[in-house]
Amino acid sequence: MDASNDLLLAYLQQNNLFSEMDAQQLIALAPIQHFKKGTILLKEGQRSKAEYFVLKGCLRAYYMVDGEEKTTEFYSEFEPVSPICIAKNEPSDYYLTCLEDAILIVSDASIQQDAFEQLPNLKNICLQMTEQILAQKQIALNNFKINSPEQRYLNLLDSNPALIQRVPQYQLASYLGITPQSLSRLRNRLIKK
Amino acid sequence: MDASNDLLLAYLQQNNLFSEMDAQQLIALAPIQHFKKGTILLKEGQRSKAEYFVLKGCLRAYYMVDGEEKTTEFYSEFEPVSPICIAKNEPSDYYLTCLEDAILIVSDASIQQDAFEQLPNLKNICLQMTEQILAQKQIALNNFKINSPEQRYLNLLDSNPALIQRVPQYQLASYLGITPQSLSRLRNRLIKK
Repeated sequence: MDASNDLLLAYLQQNNLFSEMDAQQLIALAPIQHFKKGTILLKEGQRSKAEYFVLKGCLRAYYMVDGEEKTTEFYSEFEPVSPICIAKNEPSDYYLTCLEDAILIVSDASIQQDAFEQLPNLKNICLQMTEQILAQKQIALNNFKINSPEQRYLNLLDSNPALIQRVPQYQLASYLGITPQSLSRLRNRLIKK
Repeated sequence: MDASNDLLLAYLQQNNLFSEMDAQQLIALAPIQHFKKGTILLKEGQRSKAEYFVLKGCLRAYYMVDGEEKTTEFYSEFEPVSPICIAKNEPSDYYLTCLEDAILIVSDASIQQDAFEQLPNLKNICLQMTEQILAQKQIALNNFKINSPEQRYLNLLDSNPALIQRVPQYQLASYLGITPQSLSRLRNRLIKK
């Protein structure tokens, strides 16, 4: 078993998601691929059915708006990535790239269907995981409606401090819905406090 | 069969979600309740396991921030409502109320489990529906990161014009992440265009 499989096995065991036997079966089914930093996984205008699960590394979603990149999401270890274009069955509105070298499970509806048939409990786990991520997205969305940019930054510092160290500041600013200048001013204000 | 069941049956048939027989079985399992406008379904600080599916009417989620209501979501016909406190297993951070008289399916994990056992296809439908709603939430979140308040208003006018007529303007402003004064100015600007 190579190191990529170890990553997945450790995740599955740590979260008690499967018995040892089922975990080994899932690993045998999961098509794991390695990608270099900078790889574009999805382009604006492209149709794609590929879904991902990050075993190592960090992905970034961004829109091109008037020639400028607007970063909307980062995906790091043990996060699933299901591009909107799949649910909408339309060409993608945005790009998805590897911000770092990445090890990903690359899946699609047909691979999932096979896995659902072989591992009856997998569908329950996917439903629970999707519900958890939906709750996280709703929290992120509410965060934009009820909180100031400063509070959003403090919430990120609390919930995911590693991300702040890991990604370029201009991308982080866009992710927080502010300009890089505002983020810089905001951080200086907080340091002085 | 009363009118509430007819609403659910029409929805299930229109979307080809179930065979006629399965639809009748689901209706027999679904606990439908009527609520008066103004009913508070969930309070800040309260623990709840109740999930809803709107058959008729409109619900509103809001936070109390410094004594002021901040509306974050509206839920109308044929939308599921799963409060964040269930996924987080914590007391709720927000209120959920009936903005209009409402007819709702009121469910919980145990009712869902029974329904999953009796209707094997229901879990697939729930997974697909949850994935669709997750995509919608991601679109709503990206909308805050890449678009101006004016563009967010125009997007809502495009995607859900009925909502703009249906809810009070100060609640709509908060839902769009702006002040009521900004919404009013923005609408006046657009009328003049």
